Amino acid sequence: MDLFKTRVEALTKEHEALINRKNSVKAGGNGIFDRYANPVLTAAHTPLFWRYDFSETENPYFMERMGIGCVFNPGAIYFDGKYCLVARVEGADRKSFFAVAESGNGIDGFRFRDYPILMPETDEPDTNIYDMRLTRHEDGYIYGLFCTERKDPDAPEGDTSAAVAKCGIARTKDLERWERLADLDAGAAQQRNVVLHPEFINGKYAFYTRPQDGFIEVGKAGGIGWGLSDSMENAKITEEFTFEPKVYHTIKEVKNGQGPTPVKTDEGWLHIAHGVRNTAAGLRYVLYAFLTDLDEPYKLLYTPGGYLLAPEGEERVGDVSNVVFCNGMIEHDGMLYIYYASSDTRVHVATTTIEQMLDYVKHTPADGLTSHHCVQQRKKLIDKYFESRSKK
Amino acid sequence: MDLFKTRVEALTKEHEALINRKNSVKAGGNGIFDRYANPVLTAAHTPLFWRYDFSETENPYFMERMGIGCVFNPGAIYFDGKYCLVARVEGADRKSFFAVAESGNGIDGFRFRDYPILMPETDEPDTNIYDMRLTRHEDGYIYGLFCTERKDPDAPEGDTSAAVAKCGIARTKDLERWERLADLDAGAAQQRNVVLHPEFINGKYAFYTRPQDGFIEVGKAGGIGWGLSDSMENAKITEEFTFEPKVYHTIKEVKNGQGPTPVKTDEGWLHIAHGVRNTAAGLRYVLYAFLTDLDEPYKLLYTPGGYLLAPEGEERVGDVSNVVFCNGMIEHDGMLYIYYASSDTRVHVATTTIEQMLDYVKHTPADGLTSHHCVQQRKKLIDKYFESRSKK
Repeated sequence: MDLFKTRVEALTKEHEALINRKNSVKAGGNGIFDRYANPVLTAAHTPLFWRYDFSETENPYFMERMGIGCVFNPGAIYFDGKYCLVARVEGADRKSFFAVAESGNGIDGFRFRDYPILMPETDEPDTNIYDMRLTRHEDGYIYGLFCTERKDPDAPEGDTSAAVAKCGIARTKDLERWERLADLDAGAAQQRNVVLHPEFINGKYAFYTRPQDGFIEVGKAGGIGWGLSDSMENAKITEEFTFEPKVYHTIKEVKNGQGPTPVKTDEGWLHIAHGVRNTAAGLRYVLYAFLTDLDEPYKLLYTPGGYLLAPEGEERVGDVSNVVFCNGMIEHDGMLYIYYASSDTRVHVATTTIEQMLDYVKHTPADGLTSHHCVQQRKKLIDKYFESRSKK
Repeated sequence: MDLFKTRVEALTKEHEALINRKNSVKAGGNGIFDRYANPVLTAAHTPLFWRYDFSETENPYFMERMGIGCVFNPGAIYFDGKYCLVARVEGADRKSFFAVAESGNGIDGFRFRDYPILMPETDEPDTNIYDMRLTRHEDGYIYGLFCTERKDPDAPEGDTSAAVAKCGIARTKDLERWERLADLDAGAAQQRNVVLHPEFINGKYAFYTRPQDGFIEVGKAGGIGWGLSDSMENAKITEEFTFEPKVYHTIKEVKNGQGPTPVKTDEGWLHIAHGVRNTAAGLRYVLYAFLTDLDEPYKLLYTPGGYLLAPEGEERVGDVSNVVFCNGMIEHDGMLYIYYASSDTRVHVATTTIEQMLDYVKHTPADGLTSHHCVQQRKKLIDKYFESRSKK
């Protein structure tokens, strides 16, 4: 058999084996959630025909024509009986785009649809688009809010990095056909991690925002904000306030941002967010959780201290190491599927229940803010142990 | 047997086993090149007698006297029937030097010559020298161009880091005896990644350059430049222009630089270069390729988009993580041996053929520059797949 056919067969077999690989809970969890043995989506999950030219005459070596480096930061939604991820797929050329992958059980078997999403542009072409948050809004649409990045028109000469990040908005009813709306008009110089709340608040569309002064630096701004808009067409936030700020010497010291669309529970809106601190080896991203009021979703009810989930084992290393990021979770039949990416490279799932998460947010003490207070918190826990033993 | 002899025997055995270890192609390649199971050179490949005092009376513990941390970024040349690497060897003291390692097949068995190169100095002593590019020039010499680094004489008081990078030049006929010439005199404040073109252009010596404003920052400058010099003695470039610039939101957004001396093919000069972008976890270095005109080597013929090779698996982590760098490749009998270092720590080889690389540069689409264009490029590839299937 010739090289071409041998390679096509070998790679196809390998690809199918990867997609059909069963996933299983990792032993040794912390009781809050379960991790899984395998990532649920990687670059290798993208169809071979997205990367290879299958014409033997034109590609005799069966050579990769358009490489894909990473699949990460997916939005997530339960749709038409399937767990759907709208992943950020990054080509070898560093441009990312969105693509839908579906699974019947949410923990393995994720397969991409035949085509990625060709997201329509506004009058101002996006250079890059990424990190979609999916919201099934009570107005009947599924909205995808994402970061759109363009070269900074005011960049000094020779600065090939300066960029502007804004919130792009699109909507769909089938995850297939997308209607692009105008970018969110908000006060801050730049916006990232904007998420649409699923319900009207005072008859208006409500947004979780993250205003920032620069492209990377949040500056004086930062923290998770809140704002309302009359409409999703030409959405405009005129008043914005921060309800979940960044705080000195916490896991969200440098910046933080809303993760996925919050999930409604009997006791409040359950949020997952990311917190960022600086280290000698660059920024470190972890996930944390909090619960907010059902009617006033910007009112904090419970704010457990520290991280919910931090990079572990193989998650620690990737194209951008020391990062976990989550912008998609699915609640289905009381189970919660948290899709998080590690190190800007691959997607994992962590599973838990709404019950467990409510237990977690309510019973994990809030951040003690100083070493001394934190030891006092811990001493209480230890005292409790010895007291219970002495009673026996 | 005493500790000394036990250790000498064990370490010697281990060292010989390492050097004699066979290498093999890693399964699952992309059809463009093959990776290999083992690195071809590591710190452990340096002779034990470069690191240990073998006198039992003076070193009863057989203790390492002068550690070596990394072996990386080698220049490469086929010489005297052997694949020769002039590696950058870095002592535990952070100073690097050059040393020749030879192999009969280019993929394993690399053994260092008994002594490293004691590179002669100019009147202005180098603090550090590294990243040699070897060029067999048609004038009959083998030239080694490398970075020479010295403390910045204008550093503000208390700044112990400010440095100046220049292009050092030496020549040899045997890789053994080196004649040091004056550093390249070029216009920019600093120069790195300077490479000598193997042929005269208009009767002059031709250089690939990378002018930069600061020691790390390329500033307004940057990109791969081109300049001519009448002579290699007191080489001086008076006119320099950039023909391969850094570009926003590509793999070479922050900086880029020529890799090894380009290889002549029937269709043009085949180049490998490095591209650098910034991430939340520091700079990320990847390799990319392009083809230039045979007579005017600064004229771009093909510029495949994205990276050719990015850090993978164990390559991702090292003294300076998330880096692949290549300044040496060897073409021999149509085979191409690409020597690349990972994370400033160890040297690997990737093998391919000139035929495959020409196929790659000619048929990989150029960078689409925006997410939308890149998806359109990919859509073409996918359409082609489904069209060919429907014809069957």
